[in-house]
Parts: sequence; structure tokens; C-alpha cells
Amino acid sequence: MSIDIGGTSTKLAIVGQQGVILEKSTLMTSAFKDEHTYFNSLFESIYTLLSMHNGQYKVNGIGLGAPSCNPIEGTIDGAANLPFPQKVEIARVLETEFDLPVYLIKDGNASALGEGLFGAAQNMDNYMVITLGTGLGCGIVSNKKIVSGNNGQAGEIGHSVIKRNGRECGCGKNGCLETYVSATGIKRTLFKLLTFSVAENSFKNIPFNEVSPKMIYEAAKIGNPIALKAFEQTGQILGEKLSELVAIFEPEAIFLAGGLSEAGTFLFDPVIAHMEHSLLDIYKGKIQVLPSSLKTNEAALLGAASLVWQNQNIKETCQL
Amino acid sequence: MSIDIGGTSTKLAIVGQQGVILEKSTLMTSAFKDEHTYFNSLFESIYTLLSMHNGQYKVNGIGLGAPSCNPIEGTIDGAANLPFPQKVEIARVLETEFDLPVYLIKDGNASALGEGLFGAAQNMDNYMVITLGTGLGCGIVSNKKIVSGNNGQAGEIGHSVIKRNGRECGCGKNGCLETYVSATGIKRTLFKLLTFSVAENSFKNIPFNEVSPKMIYEAAKIGNPIALKAFEQTGQILGEKLSELVAIFEPEAIFLAGGLSEAGTFLFDPVIAHMEHSLLDIYKGKIQVLPSSLKTNEAALLGAASLVWQNQNIKETCQL
Repeated sequence: MSIDIGGTSTKLAIVGQQGVILEKSTLMTSAFKDEHTYFNSLFESIYTLLSMHNGQYKVNGIGLGAPSCNPIEGTIDGAANLPFPQKVEIARVLETEFDLPVYLIKDGNASALGEGLFGAAQNMDNYMVITLGTGLGCGIVSNKKIVSGNNGQAGEIGHSVIKRNGRECGCGKNGCLETYVSATGIKRTLFKLLTFSVAENSFKNIPFNEVSPKMIYEAAKIGNPIALKAFEQTGQILGEKLSELVAIFEPEAIFLAGGLSEAGTFLFDPVIAHMEHSLLDIYKGKIQVLPSSLKTNEAALLGAASLVWQNQNIKETCQL
Repeated sequence: MSIDIGGTSTKLAIVGQQGVILEKSTLMTSAFKDEHTYFNSLFESIYTLLSMHNGQYKVNGIGLGAPSCNPIEGTIDGAANLPFPQKVEIARVLETEFDLPVYLIKDGNASALGEGLFGAAQNMDNYMVITLGTGLGCGIVSNKKIVSGNNGQAGEIGHSVIKRNGRECGCGKNGCLETYVSATGIKRTLFKLLTFSVAENSFKNIPFNEVSPKMIYEAAKIGNPIALKAFEQTGQILGEKLSELVAIFEPEAIFLAGGLSEAGTFLFDPVIAHMEHSLLDIYKGKIQVLPSSLKTNEAALLGAASLVWQNQNIKETCQL
């Protein structure tokens, strides 16, 4: 079984070893105000999944992808976009409740594992996955291994500061990349652009909290100039950041995943143009920027699930 | 045998398999204006070394660390700080002249290999080496392997842009990290600070081209306020950049190497203070910033030499 905890939603799945999602459910993370009510609902969702197919699925453990987690301690701590900013011993809590081993991994790393095991990165030794959801997650694979860091806490690119004294971030700092490049980042950009313009615009009639990235995408499709500009600016910032990451890692490909990546060319065109413009000559034209080859959110669920097989030596192919 | 080509000097050595430098020489790279005269002198230096100890050293190959190189093609191309900015097939050139196999590696990666094989990183799985010479080089080790990228061209952190429309860089871009943080970077900062101040300062009597990082260090030691401020500003920029790199890699330690790192606390204090200030809470107080444990430049020479043993299976311990 695998769980992918995100700022907007928590995805759960029973996953077969061929990377097939057998059962699936979703919980709206953002609907909860505190740890207690969130965990009650999470438990309920897990029990529901476990009981499906008449409870016949043989579940060997829970692979859990989450932001700001410490896989060694089994904790989530200081998550900017979750209803529990304080430290939670999530592995212990779930193990106690369900009597199943729990394997924790950073959300971005889970996506990178999923893409490498079951997606378009199966034959790649060096690649990156950038997940554009409520925040910006990242998973890096070098020499066919996840760059996990000394305590599994590598990959916090979303909190690299791109603008000193820039936008407030949930992490307590200012100007973090994810305050500009993420589902919420593009919304902030859109509303900032609205304040510049005197022209009438449909978004002037919708409250901030009701705007979704999908609405911005739909508006861009029918030529809304502010929506188009929001994608252009978001793509520029991401493209310039990617050019830096290329200089650090020289990956074969960079995959963009998560809700915002579904905007297709509205996002990819400026990302690629600005990345190429900023790249050192030696890298120009050599780095692929691709959409995740897996369905939205499935990469993280599959990657997290693979931890169970890997840790229990259930399946050889669960190693990259 | 190993060679470490830097913007200021080219270091050469005959290296024993225990990581002992048996013979050593240096060539001033910056004294040459073109490829032709540089290579003539390089050849001469190599012949001199090979003939030492009555020509009795058994040399199995040449390990070559260089900036802007492509280890797969065996070329150096577009090196911002070398007397040959155009592409040079350096591996082929040396192989032809000396009838020895030549193994190429990025200079920063050579330093990282050296530190891991013979220095303080011997028991570390995840660490970084930043070399502060004419430019800024970088070698990253993740999961005990060099992060070399798809074509061995990873690690160009020196050319990540930290200031849009900032200082001109030899690479053709503006605002690259190494235009601020390197031996030449701190000199540029020092002279910029001089232009702000009306106070008399000893550096107002010395031409730009005659100031070395060692002179800035000596001036800082006797309290020269501009020299002290140059270190503070350089350390701040590097410290903030390191905080980003920590968020990406979560290394156990970051080693600072190269001439500028010999300034000790003048550099390390502001680097560590600004890095810690900018770090996400989860990393604070956990990342060591250390001087290279090897003599200046030896890390790169040892790392480059290890390529010969590694490629010829001469020595088991040459793998990290």
C-alpha cells in the first residue's frame, strides 16, 4: 500500500508489484485544520482501502511519500503546507495503528523512484523529477540512485531563495522558489499581475481562495492575457532555476509532474525557452524537459510502494 | 602521473599508490597567451617529471583534472579561465605525445575523489568539495559516488547566476557565482569596495593585476577594513549559496579547498554564519564546513591520479 501526502490532497493506493494501482482513494489534506482530525480521516481511508476486495489484498507494508520528512527518524517536521507544522512521528503512529511496517520517503524522491521504475526514466542513469503541486518537490537520481542526502532530507529545492525579501513562504523564509513556482505560486503571480492592470479581467470577480491552477489553464486556453502572462513568468523562473540545476547535475532529462505540469505547452514552452537561454553552451540543446510519463500523482504512489518491496526483498525490479 | 590544470597554475605530480606525491612541479597557466606556447611548456614539464629519479618511475597513465572538460570526448571546451577558450582535444594530444593512456575528469570532481580516497571524507557517503581558485569548482559525492552527470559535465556551480546583469564572467554570461566567490572574485569585490570609500587604503597604491588573494589575507590580518569587508561579503555570498546546496544534497560536510580557503576564519566565519542563517531549520547545526584536509591542490592531484589505478584495476582502494 502507498500513501502520498500533499498539501492539497492525500492520495492512497493499493499497488500491485507490476506497478498497477489496484485501488485508490483521495483525502483533501487542505480541508483539515489540525493533526487530530486529519489523522482520524487518514486512518479511516486506510481501513476502507484495506477492506476492499473483501479484505483479500495481501498488504505487506505502507510506503509513505511526504514533504519535509525525515525517513531515518520516521517523522514529518516543519511541513510548510500541511495541517501539522509541528513534528509528527508518522511512521510510529501508522505502525501502531495498522501493525504494518511503514517506510518513509520524501515526496519528490518517491516520484523520482516511480518514474525510474515504471515511467519514462527506466533507462536513465541521471534525471530529475520536479513536482509542481501546492509546493515544489524534487527528486534527483544520480548514477541510478536517489540523491537522498545524509538523513534522506535532500531535495528541498522548493525552499531555495530566488528573491531576497521576496514572497513569504510557509517555511518561515522569504522568496523561496515554491512561492513563485507551484500551484499556489502561479496563483499569487496571477493576482499580482491583476493589480498591475487596469483592463477588466474575469479573475477580478473570483476570490483568491477559489482560483485553481486548472482555472488559470482554462483561461490561458481562451487567451486571457493575465493567465498567459502568469504562465510565462512562472515558466521563466522555473526555466532559469532548471538551468542552474543542469549545471550542477547534468541530467539526461528533467520531468515535470504534479497538477501544474498538466498545463502543457503554456508551462513547458517558457520553461524550455528560458532554461535554454540561461544554459552554459556545453549543455544547450542536450537536456530534455518532459512531462511525467505516468498519470498525475501515480509516480509518487508507485515510488512509495516500491519501498515496501525493496525493504522486504519482495521484488528484484524495485531497485532502480 | 597526474595533472591539475587551473586558471592560475598547472600542477603536475608523480603519485604513488598510497596517495604519496613523489615528484611535483608547477607551470604558470596564466603566463601563457595561447594554446601553442602553453602546450609546449606543459609537454616540457611532463618530460622533466618522467625523467626524474633517473626515469625509473613506472608511470601507467595520466590522470588529468581540468575545468570545463568533457571526460567522454576527452576535450576541454569553453574554459573561461584558460589560455585556450576554444575546444582542445587534450586527451588525444597527450596520448599521442607520451604514448600513455589519459583519463580526464572535471577539476572539482578530482578534488572530491582525492578528499574521499585520501582525506577527511574517507568515511563519508555524502559530501561536497568547493575549490576556490581562479574560478569556483565543485565536486559532489552522493551515495559514495561522484555526481558526474550524463557526460561527466556536472558540477558547474561556479556558473550559476547569483545576480542578474551582474559581473561579466569569462563564460560569456553575467553574474556567475565565481565572479564573486573565487580568488579573482574577492579581488573584484575589494576593488569595488575601494571605490566606495574615501578613506586612504594601501590597496589604492597597487594595480588590480598585482593583487593576490594572499595579499588580501595578509591585509585582513592587520585589520585593513576593506580587506575584512571583502572577506565578509565573499563569505556571505558563498554561505547563502551553500545553504541552497545543502537543501539540494544534504551533505554530511562541505570542504572548502583552493588558495582562497587558506584565509581560514576570515573566510570560514562569514561562510558558516550566513549559511546557518539561511538554512532551513531541519539542517541547522548539522552540516560541517571544513577546510580540505589535504595540502593545497593535492586533493585534485590525488583524485586525478586515482583515475589511472581505477581504469586499469591497479588498486582496489581507488574506488570511493
